[in-house]
Amino acid sequence: MPEAPQESELVTDEHWMDQAIELAWRGQGYVEPNPMVGCVIVRDGRLIGQGYHQVFGEAHAEVNALADCQRAGEDAAGATAYVTLEPCCHHGKTPPCADALVAAQVKRVVVAVVDPFDAVDGGGVSRLRDAGIDVVTGIGTVKATQLLAPYLKRVRTGKPWVIAKWAMSMDGRIATSTGESQWITGPESRKEVHRLRGRVDAIATGMGTVQVDDPSLTAREGGPRQPTRVVFLRSRCPGIDSQLVRTASQVPTWLAVGPAISDCDLALLADHDVEFMRCRSAGQTEMVDEVLARLGAGDNPSGQIITNLMLECGGGLLGSFAAAGQIDEAHVYIGSKLIGGLAAPGPVGDPGVALLADALGFEITDVSQFGADVRLIYRRLDS
Amino acid sequence: MPEAPQESELVTDEHWMDQAIELAWRGQGYVEPNPMVGCVIVRDGRLIGQGYHQVFGEAHAEVNALADCQRAGEDAAGATAYVTLEPCCHHGKTPPCADALVAAQVKRVVVAVVDPFDAVDGGGVSRLRDAGIDVVTGIGTVKATQLLAPYLKRVRTGKPWVIAKWAMSMDGRIATSTGESQWITGPESRKEVHRLRGRVDAIATGMGTVQVDDPSLTAREGGPRQPTRVVFLRSRCPGIDSQLVRTASQVPTWLAVGPAISDCDLALLADHDVEFMRCRSAGQTEMVDEVLARLGAGDNPSGQIITNLMLECGGGLLGSFAAAGQIDEAHVYIGSKLIGGLAAPGPVGDPGVALLADALGFEITDVSQFGADVRLIYRRLDS
Repeated sequence: MPEAPQESELVTDEHWMDQAIELAWRGQGYVEPNPMVGCVIVRDGRLIGQGYHQVFGEAHAEVNALADCQRAGEDAAGATAYVTLEPCCHHGKTPPCADALVAAQVKRVVVAVVDPFDAVDGGGVSRLRDAGIDVVTGIGTVKATQLLAPYLKRVRTGKPWVIAKWAMSMDGRIATSTGESQWITGPESRKEVHRLRGRVDAIATGMGTVQVDDPSLTAREGGPRQPTRVVFLRSRCPGIDSQLVRTASQVPTWLAVGPAISDCDLALLADHDVEFMRCRSAGQTEMVDEVLARLGAGDNPSGQIITNLMLECGGGLLGSFAAAGQIDEAHVYIGSKLIGGLAAPGPVGDPGVALLADALGFEITDVSQFGADVRLIYRRLDS
Repeated sequence: MPEAPQESELVTDEHWMDQAIELAWRGQGYVEPNPMVGCVIVRDGRLIGQGYHQVFGEAHAEVNALADCQRAGEDAAGATAYVTLEPCCHHGKTPPCADALVAAQVKRVVVAVVDPFDAVDGGGVSRLRDAGIDVVTGIGTVKATQLLAPYLKRVRTGKPWVIAKWAMSMDGRIATSTGESQWITGPESRKEVHRLRGRVDAIATGMGTVQVDDPSLTAREGGPRQPTRVVFLRSRCPGIDSQLVRTASQVPTWLAVGPAISDCDLALLADHDVEFMRCRSAGQTEMVDEVLARLGAGDNPSGQIITNLMLECGGGLLGSFAAAGQIDEAHVYIGSKLIGGLAAPGPVGDPGVALLADALGFEITDVSQFGADVRLIYRRLDS
């Protein structure tokens, strides 16, 4: 018998919750706009079933874990279920998970994060408690919050989680003074960028990037998704021979159009499968906010709720996202060349901050090497 | 018995040479301008003695390793000696190491790098072979070359090894658009910078940094050395109330003075313990070359041969060092703030390169985290 049973139980709870969180991550790119959820069911210190939410619209983690018990001939009655997110209590695309846990007669449910989604928001916990189930919350919350951050941001603010990606030289330049930028980083890094593209809902870029790099912004390393391209237009439109317009029939391409652009300017593009999001905001920072709100709410050409938006753009648009406080995560690839020169641009343009105290603060969550490059992943400190 | 004895011997040689290299590193900061050298003596697959060059002017690695054998009651006769650098064959501050190995009757000597120093340059190997000793070279050369790079550069080019250090935000800025730079990185990183200062011969900076930051550039974390401060002056002189001038009586301070500065301008500084290096070069790149040659040759106020020069300066001087091709190593500290803004400066100024093909190429040799920051260490690809 352990000397301090309570503390030991806590350690065990953390252990099983870690496993549930690990499982949940497997749904990344497949389940959005749903949250990633994992569930393990434990009886007498032994795992008797596990599951995770695998695909949007299909069974939730708790139901998969209970089915796993059944397949193995295990009875979940009297067991403890560890779930990364509060079980749902509403009829969505599937019946409420809280009811499934009650029906299975589990004795105890451990929850990492209470779901702020209006239709749940503590309701799942209440349903379980009303049925006499012992519910513990707040176990593994730090890791689970990292897992669920994109979902939590969208539910709380209505806006997608924004992942900025840029590649810079060892001295922080994205191009030489004459604008040469291919390539600052190597093929291994670019391959990894394609992997990231393959799990996000959408990629945003600006007209500067379209004109200079003419990218197609498709995910060419496979992955669960082929992201929608979102192009911010404030004063110029992409040509009909640009990669984005030419591939618009294969991959959705939405043009977020500022008020300075007339319908006349857009007429040429109308027959090329691009779709339009007319914006009211004149300022670029305001336009960022408006577009994000519409992406997060499904108020866009496909009606899809966008959870993860990647930014692959030049300093102008990145500067506006930073000014709007709308960079939640950054994937910074750093190459091994020294460029130098006052005119060689950095990754994030105007307005920037005058005082360090006003700078957005991040923390490093991953450091990896890809070929001759290093990739740093940052997350906003308050997200 | 191993199936492939030759290959196995090679693996064993690499193993023992690795140990000699590890030993050699312990002399870093203590032995310069001598090279770091380590030596292990092995008989019948067993280490019987080891040593390294510990302090400039005192015994060399081979002599220390032979003494270690003697202390342990081991006879080096018939043994193999592994040395990171070709044993010397000349009388310097100590007698030739090649003679000591001959006298000890070792059977075989394995050498990682042949010494390009004029007074050696293959002479040590010849001396050993003439005495009937089996000499193998080229074992562990990659690691030993990394160890010896500063020494090798100085011997081959007459110039010190230049270690540029800068701290930048996650978006590659060294200050905000209004010039605020304290602090881009955290206390753990700054502490590590002081450790680096404490092992180099000298630190160079420019007048921009003196005026903006007024640094003292001393090593405040201890270490084998207190570096000499070298200040590049092209058009302005430091004030007598600057930290560098005020502390010049405690820590050597050399002013490298360009031709645009008159003796008159310097008169005010004459009574303040600073020392002068008058330069002929008008261009800043040429001045970098001239000062480096004089530091490496001991043609400077103290007559000291400078092996390792650290750069802690702004973009102007760093740009000139880059243009001169004189950055051999870079310690890049990357913080976790996002600054942005076109006017926020990057670490390396003009002239920079117009074409990526002309950029100095580096490789990453170390990735470490200090508090909330990451430090990347780069080395020039061809150094």
